[in-house]
Amino acid sequence: MTTAVTTSVAHDRVLAAFERLEAAAQPEVWITVRSREEVLAAASDIDARFAAGEALPLYGTVFAVKDNIDVAGLPTTAAHPDFSYEPVADSTVVSRLVAAGAIVIGKTNMDQFATGLVGTRSPFGVVHSAIKPERVSGGSSSGSAVAVASGIVDFSLGTDTAGSGRVPAAYNGLVGLKPTRGVIPVTGVVPASISYDCVSIFAPTMSLAADVLRVAAGADASDPYSRAWPAFTPLAAPARPRVAVPDDAELARLSPETRAAFEAAVRDLNARGVETAPIDITPFMDASGLLYSGALVAERHDAFGDFVTSNTEHADPSVLTIATNAWTLRATDLARDQRLVQEQRLRGIQALDGFDALLLPTAPEHPTIADVQSDPLVVNSRLGRYTNFVNLFDLAAVAIPAGEADGGMFGVTFVTRGFADQVGIDLAALMLDEDPPLVVDGATSLVVFGAHLSGQPLNAQLEAAGGRLVGLVQTSADYRLYDVPGPIKRPGLVYEPGNGESIVGEEWMFSPAGLGEVVAQLTAPMSIGPIFLDDGRTVSGFQAAQVGGPDITAFGGWLAYLQEQAV
Amino acid sequence: MTTAVTTSVAHDRVLAAFERLEAAAQPEVWITVRSREEVLAAASDIDARFAAGEALPLYGTVFAVKDNIDVAGLPTTAAHPDFSYEPVADSTVVSRLVAAGAIVIGKTNMDQFATGLVGTRSPFGVVHSAIKPERVSGGSSSGSAVAVASGIVDFSLGTDTAGSGRVPAAYNGLVGLKPTRGVIPVTGVVPASISYDCVSIFAPTMSLAADVLRVAAGADASDPYSRAWPAFTPLAAPARPRVAVPDDAELARLSPETRAAFEAAVRDLNARGVETAPIDITPFMDASGLLYSGALVAERHDAFGDFVTSNTEHADPSVLTIATNAWTLRATDLARDQRLVQEQRLRGIQALDGFDALLLPTAPEHPTIADVQSDPLVVNSRLGRYTNFVNLFDLAAVAIPAGEADGGMFGVTFVTRGFADQVGIDLAALMLDEDPPLVVDGATSLVVFGAHLSGQPLNAQLEAAGGRLVGLVQTSADYRLYDVPGPIKRPGLVYEPGNGESIVGEEWMFSPAGLGEVVAQLTAPMSIGPIFLDDGRTVSGFQAAQVGGPDITAFGGWLAYLQEQAV
Repeated sequence: MTTAVTTSVAHDRVLAAFERLEAAAQPEVWITVRSREEVLAAASDIDARFAAGEALPLYGTVFAVKDNIDVAGLPTTAAHPDFSYEPVADSTVVSRLVAAGAIVIGKTNMDQFATGLVGTRSPFGVVHSAIKPERVSGGSSSGSAVAVASGIVDFSLGTDTAGSGRVPAAYNGLVGLKPTRGVIPVTGVVPASISYDCVSIFAPTMSLAADVLRVAAGADASDPYSRAWPAFTPLAAPARPRVAVPDDAELARLSPETRAAFEAAVRDLNARGVETAPIDITPFMDASGLLYSGALVAERHDAFGDFVTSNTEHADPSVLTIATNAWTLRATDLARDQRLVQEQRLRGIQALDGFDALLLPTAPEHPTIADVQSDPLVVNSRLGRYTNFVNLFDLAAVAIPAGEADGGMFGVTFVTRGFADQVGIDLAALMLDEDPPLVVDGATSLVVFGAHLSGQPLNAQLEAAGGRLVGLVQTSADYRLYDVPGPIKRPGLVYEPGNGESIVGEEWMFSPAGLGEVVAQLTAPMSIGPIFLDDGRTVSGFQAAQVGGPDITAFGGWLAYLQEQAV
Repeated sequence: MTTAVTTSVAHDRVLAAFERLEAAAQPEVWITVRSREEVLAAASDIDARFAAGEALPLYGTVFAVKDNIDVAGLPTTAAHPDFSYEPVADSTVVSRLVAAGAIVIGKTNMDQFATGLVGTRSPFGVVHSAIKPERVSGGSSSGSAVAVASGIVDFSLGTDTAGSGRVPAAYNGLVGLKPTRGVIPVTGVVPASISYDCVSIFAPTMSLAADVLRVAAGADASDPYSRAWPAFTPLAAPARPRVAVPDDAELARLSPETRAAFEAAVRDLNARGVETAPIDITPFMDASGLLYSGALVAERHDAFGDFVTSNTEHADPSVLTIATNAWTLRATDLARDQRLVQEQRLRGIQALDGFDALLLPTAPEHPTIADVQSDPLVVNSRLGRYTNFVNLFDLAAVAIPAGEADGGMFGVTFVTRGFADQVGIDLAALMLDEDPPLVVDGATSLVVFGAHLSGQPLNAQLEAAGGRLVGLVQTSADYRLYDVPGPIKRPGLVYEPGNGESIVGEEWMFSPAGLGEVVAQLTAPMSIGPIFLDDGRTVSGFQAAQVGGPDITAFGGWLAYLQEQAV
């Protein structure tokens, strides 16, 4: 995030974006670009709001919006010119980002009605990978990915039903963040398959994508599919994560170079302290196969089938074929496939028992534009093998770059349980040497001073409760620390104003249920109450009343005392 | 629950059940009755386990099982003789009840494949209301309701997709408890409409139904649709509940006598301290209309359509018609109707803002058997007006008796939010002068002594957190109470062993997130830590460390001190 001393940051960033946009000369990336004057006026407003002291977490950022997401005053086409309408209101996600200080540059090209993973299914032109121009950009969020990868905008919005926010990330060397379904509302988004549609985020870094998600997330009273972060939400990957990877049977399907690229990513993860283990990913792959080959595609017919089949002139031929075929499906087959998804999902969730995430190639290959054009439906369907199942199973995913293979781009994706978005973000950040923010709001701090500290015997309680380590804190100089006699080797922090010292502890954060789980495990003589910190804050933490035992205040903290004892 | 001093309680109860079953002479209620010898042998086993000290929360109860729920060794027919199979394992729900000491007497008649609300759609015979024999029993759980209402069994299991566990309760003067979808697993239950199927409970009292639910509830690793109680679960109706009721436009649809019976129930509720207010229930009624008239019925085709249409000899004509018509539905229409349900659900949930429950007639009328037989599809479809939407909207419901109207039986239903089952149970119990148990497991106790007590300023925090008042408690004689100076009038409980008294407080229970929400609102000088009670338990509660202020220990508690001050 830019921290500005001047107040023309937004204005300057907009000027630079337009220069880069013109220099890039990729008209196929955009369906509508706002006029420079209009955007500069918006930037001046933002600069003025910032100068007036308004909190603008996305101040100074410019972004692009996939053309199935409403921006007031700009046409929404979903890449079908005859579908075009001009919305009077921003989509919920755009309005939240704009309120946070981000500025819309324009609307991007896409596979028509978000139906495709290639970036070639649009009457507005074929979109090329920003890095490998002879290869596809990926889709359906083609233009949004390339607009970021080309450096024109800071971030962009895509949508992701079957992988449209992840495959283009892989093909353009970006972070592609696909939150749990419903975390970003879809109010003002053209549906593709309404049960599974997500808004997604492209950015060059995990940290910026997380900054955007933090602003964009939250239930929306006008979106039946939106969902708040639940009462129990894990707020961090654990200190020693465990990640599942596909077994040999699956990896043998990849080309040697692609497999080597994936295995290099796994080794990198291991080198960063993450334990990996192979699992049989059949339940996930079975569901991926269902997405287009079964009856689930009927939701796409509900969304745009009648329109496409009666407006064929500008319909993409592949999209038209899919819509036409979907009309013939029987309701009983859709009911059956939905039931199969639930059965497969249960097996998939159980396969993840004991793991924090599943690491997969984002796509199994990076085809050339010529490859796709020679056999558009078959090549496209191969690309979704590692992405299609994610929304069917109500999971979250983060795609990150992971080098190249076979002359194309390669990326990997962390798939996590629904609402464990932060776990995937933390793992991706670990790979990228970044330090992203907490994206989940409503968390409560708790400070710990003894057996709950990192590495100490009760720390597992905090991790099981989904706790996030914020960092070290110091109490105000009003506390004494005692070595409490009892079955657990632990200290007691006692408030003794006028007779105390500053004691070091760790600050953790928890969701409401995480906090409740920690409190439910309290044992005498510990209690949880307000702790006064030397930074002026008052935060709940562990303390003790009448403890007895040696006064160890002089050590300044429990670990220093333990170290001394160990000598 | 029977508390036995003898160890032949189960044996005696089985003997009595068989005597009553033979005296009742209602063969149409049952599809399979176990042999008396077999059940007596099971009873002796249970008596022996009880005598050996095993905890058997349902000891001494006998129950009947709807014939779409597996009981090992007894055929499951779903009321279609050719469908019959003999399961080798109990359904999950039956195995849990049997493990808790309950004994299966037999399998009951039902509307074929649980498709109907009448009790007439079975080749095993038409089932009559136990109280108004010229009228229908209601269905599809017809035999299960009558077996309880006739006094043969203590409780029974039904299933409820569109009202099959509630309409028969109304027509037989019973409590019909339909938990939130997934709370009772459906492993070993013949599907009707798998997304919406629930196992339900019939009992003469709310308390017994709740005892059964407490045992039956809990996620099942082999059921993709089962769900654990969530991290935030309300554990009680508030002290001053607010209940929505249909507005005049809706009540005008009822016959004068039925309307009068409903309004009498509302007045009764008001007299018990519950505030009621009319709302427009259109979103709920729109969804009720969709259940059979739209494409959602395709799930029934997926479940049994091929079987029924190719085994027509013993097919019920109405069920055959529904299955045949469902085959013609298009997948896109099912996708559309599922989307409409989500849109209607959002409006329905918003209509309940500020209310703890919605009170409705369970059914709008109680038809005679002749009525139903003269026009089976149309009369049946009228009966589900107030029940069909509940599972579509992922809500919970409790049906209770409420007198008679137009010569038939009348009942009302409390509909609550999903997983707010306990709220409906508490409201039903209030109407029935009962004191049912907490059905939700995993709750944690918290004791309060001052501003959080019932009626005191911070008590609203406990209610908002879904807290349940368990009752008064006394600390051990180790505490002193102080009137704490500060902005909030509140006491501080301080542990002073050897120098204290016993102080009165209230014990509350919370779900993990409820507890976390209370803790997140802690302010100095309060803390939460272990409190020693005079009953020997140690329970977390509010306490204070250094407080100052007058010592008010001699009053024995905060309310006595406030009363003294008010004089």
